[in-house]
Amino acid sequence: MIYSYQRLESYIIDLLQSMGCSKYDSKIISDVLIKAELRNISSHGVSRLKDYVNLWKTKRINPNPDISIVHETLSTAVVDGDSSFGMIAGEYAMNLAIKKAEKVGTAWISVRNSNHFGIAGYYAMKALEHDMIGICMTNANPLVAPTFSVDRLLGTNPIAVAIPAGKYPPFVADFATTPIARGKLDLMHKKADKAPEGYVQDKDGRPSNDPNILTSGGAILPLGGDYLHGSHKGYCLGAIVDIFSAVLSGANFGPFVPPSVAYLPVLENQPGIGTGHFMGAMRIDAFQKADEFKAQMDLWIETFKNAKTDSYHESVIIPGEPEREWEIKNMKNGINILDKIIEDLNIIALEQNINPL
Amino acid sequence: MIYSYQRLESYIIDLLQSMGCSKYDSKIISDVLIKAELRNISSHGVSRLKDYVNLWKTKRINPNPDISIVHETLSTAVVDGDSSFGMIAGEYAMNLAIKKAEKVGTAWISVRNSNHFGIAGYYAMKALEHDMIGICMTNANPLVAPTFSVDRLLGTNPIAVAIPAGKYPPFVADFATTPIARGKLDLMHKKADKAPEGYVQDKDGRPSNDPNILTSGGAILPLGGDYLHGSHKGYCLGAIVDIFSAVLSGANFGPFVPPSVAYLPVLENQPGIGTGHFMGAMRIDAFQKADEFKAQMDLWIETFKNAKTDSYHESVIIPGEPEREWEIKNMKNGINILDKIIEDLNIIALEQNINPL
Repeated sequence: MIYSYQRLESYIIDLLQSMGCSKYDSKIISDVLIKAELRNISSHGVSRLKDYVNLWKTKRINPNPDISIVHETLSTAVVDGDSSFGMIAGEYAMNLAIKKAEKVGTAWISVRNSNHFGIAGYYAMKALEHDMIGICMTNANPLVAPTFSVDRLLGTNPIAVAIPAGKYPPFVADFATTPIARGKLDLMHKKADKAPEGYVQDKDGRPSNDPNILTSGGAILPLGGDYLHGSHKGYCLGAIVDIFSAVLSGANFGPFVPPSVAYLPVLENQPGIGTGHFMGAMRIDAFQKADEFKAQMDLWIETFKNAKTDSYHESVIIPGEPEREWEIKNMKNGINILDKIIEDLNIIALEQNINPL
Repeated sequence: MIYSYQRLESYIIDLLQSMGCSKYDSKIISDVLIKAELRNISSHGVSRLKDYVNLWKTKRINPNPDISIVHETLSTAVVDGDSSFGMIAGEYAMNLAIKKAEKVGTAWISVRNSNHFGIAGYYAMKALEHDMIGICMTNANPLVAPTFSVDRLLGTNPIAVAIPAGKYPPFVADFATTPIARGKLDLMHKKADKAPEGYVQDKDGRPSNDPNILTSGGAILPLGGDYLHGSHKGYCLGAIVDIFSAVLSGANFGPFVPPSVAYLPVLENQPGIGTGHFMGAMRIDAFQKADEFKAQMDLWIETFKNAKTDSYHESVIIPGEPEREWEIKNMKNGINILDKIIEDLNIIALEQNINPL
C-alpha cells in the first residue's frame, strides 16, 4: 500500500514516543528511516522497526540515552552512545564532527556503545549543507567471510561519502563493502531465485548459488567475490571500516558485533561495548575556495556524465543520482510499503496503543 | 639476476644525482622504490626508472622542486609539488600530515602538481613509527572504465591504510580499486595467458579475455567487475580517491591525469595541475590510549588469524603479511631483477655516465 512520507513519519514518531523516546529523538530516528524509504533503500526503512521494538523490549536499546564524549582532541572524539538507537548516537557524532571541523578544518569521531543506525548516507549528507565533505561508516553483525575464511568475521560494513557540487546535485556514494546486501539475498530467496556466482559461499567455503545459505553456516563474500577477482581488497575495506568504527572507539569488532535483531543473542565475553561507527567532516574551504571547488566538481560530474557508454546504457551514473530520483518521485507519489510489513507495524501499534497505519 | 638492496640503492642514488636531484631527495626516491622491490611489488620498483628518466628528459619531472603549501588550516593543507618526483611531494605531504596531527589529533593533505609516487603503502606506513594511523591515496592515468562507460575515466587509484598493532606487526592494506593492476595484465600478455573474466572490457564495453586489450581501446574494470557484482562500488571508490586527490588539491582529475610515461602526451586544456595525492595521519591517542588500542588490535589480528579456513588455505591473511614476509626474505637473499630491466638500466647508466649494475 502507498503511504505519504508524512503519514509514515507520524506513525514512527508515535511509536518511538510510546517506547519512551523524547519527541526530539523520535523525529531524528524517523528522519533517518524516512530518508531510506524515500531513497528506495527499503531494507533500511520502516521494516526495521519490528527489530528495534524487540531490541528495546530486551533492553538492548535505551530510549533515553545519556550520550557522552569519552575523550577528545581538537579534531577527534570518542563518543559513547549509551546503548541508544544508532541514529541518536550517529546524529550526535556527525554534529560533533561538523562543529569541530568548523574550528580546525576536519574532524573524526569514533562511536561505541551504539546500535543499528540505518543508512550511512544520511549522516554523510548532513555535512553538505555546511559546505563540508561528509564521511560515515559503521560495522555490523558478522555475515561476511574474509578471503580464505569459512567463519563469518565482518559485517557488510558500509562506507558513505558525500561531496558538495555547484549547479549539480552532490556526489553521494553509499555502499556495502560486499557485492550485495543481506536484504537482497532474502528477496531472492523469497522469489525462489538463485544467487549469482560470487555472492555467497557455503559453510565449507565452496561457491554457492543458494540465497538462503546464511541460515546453514554460509557467508556473504567480500566485494570482488573471490581472490582471483580481488576479494582480498573487499576484505581490506571491510576490515578498515571495522577497525575505525570499533577498535578506535572501544566498540565490539569483527565477529563480536552484537546482532541487530533481538532473536539472536549477544555473545558473552565481548571485547568492547555495543556497535561502532566512524564519522568525518572536512571543510571544503580548508583545502580550496568553496566556489572554485564546486565549479571543479561540476566539471568532474559533466566529464563523467558525458562519457561514451556501452550500447545498453544511456549514461554513466553519478553516485547518488538514482537514489535522488527516487526521493523526488516518492515524496510526490508516496512510498509503497509491503502488506506483510504493514501487518507487523499494525500489530505493534496495537501492543503500544498507538494509531495503526 | 639477484642484487642486494644496497647495490640497487647505490645505482638509484647515482642515477638520480646525475639527473640533478639532491642527495637527500635521491635517498627518499630510492627508499620508496627499494621498499617496493623488497615487498615484491616489482611493478613499482626499479623498472619505473626508465619512465622517470624519460619524463625528466621531457621536463615533466623537476629534479629540483620548490614544494610549497598553497593553503592550510590546523588540520589540513594543499601542497603544490612543483612537478617533483611524486616521492618528494609524497614524503613532504605525509611529514606535514604527521606534524599537524601531533598538534590537533589528525591531519589531511591534498597534493597537486606531482607525479607518479610509487607504492602508496610507503607513505601510509610512515605514520606507524609515530603511533599514528596513516592513510594514502593517489589518482593515476586513466585506464579504468566506470560501470556502463566505454571511456577510460579513472586510474587504478590505490588506497593504503597502515594501522599500528602491539606484539604483532602492523595492519597494512595497500590495494588498487580494480580487480587487477596494469602490470599484471602486461605479464599475462607476455606469457600469452588469457585474462580471467571480470578484469577487462573491449572498446565497446564488452567482456574480454585479452590482457592486451588496453592497446586497442579497451579498459580495466572497477573492483567488482560488472554491475551485477558491485562494480559500481569499485567505481565509487576510484572516484572518491580521484576527488580527494585532485579536486580538493587542484590537480588533474579523471581522464585528464597526465600519463606517467613520456611516450604518451599530456592533454591540452587541462583542468588542473599535474597528478594528485591525498594523505592523512590520525594519532591513535586522539581516540584511545595507545597501549589499549594496540592490545585490541592484537586481539583483532588473533581473531582473524585463528578463524576457520577453507580446505585450500591454512589461515586468513592479515593485510600486509605477505609483503612483510617478502621484505624479510629479500633483505636477506637479495632482489631478483629481470634481465630486460637490467639491460635498460645499464643503457641509462651509459647515457648518464654512472656505474652500471
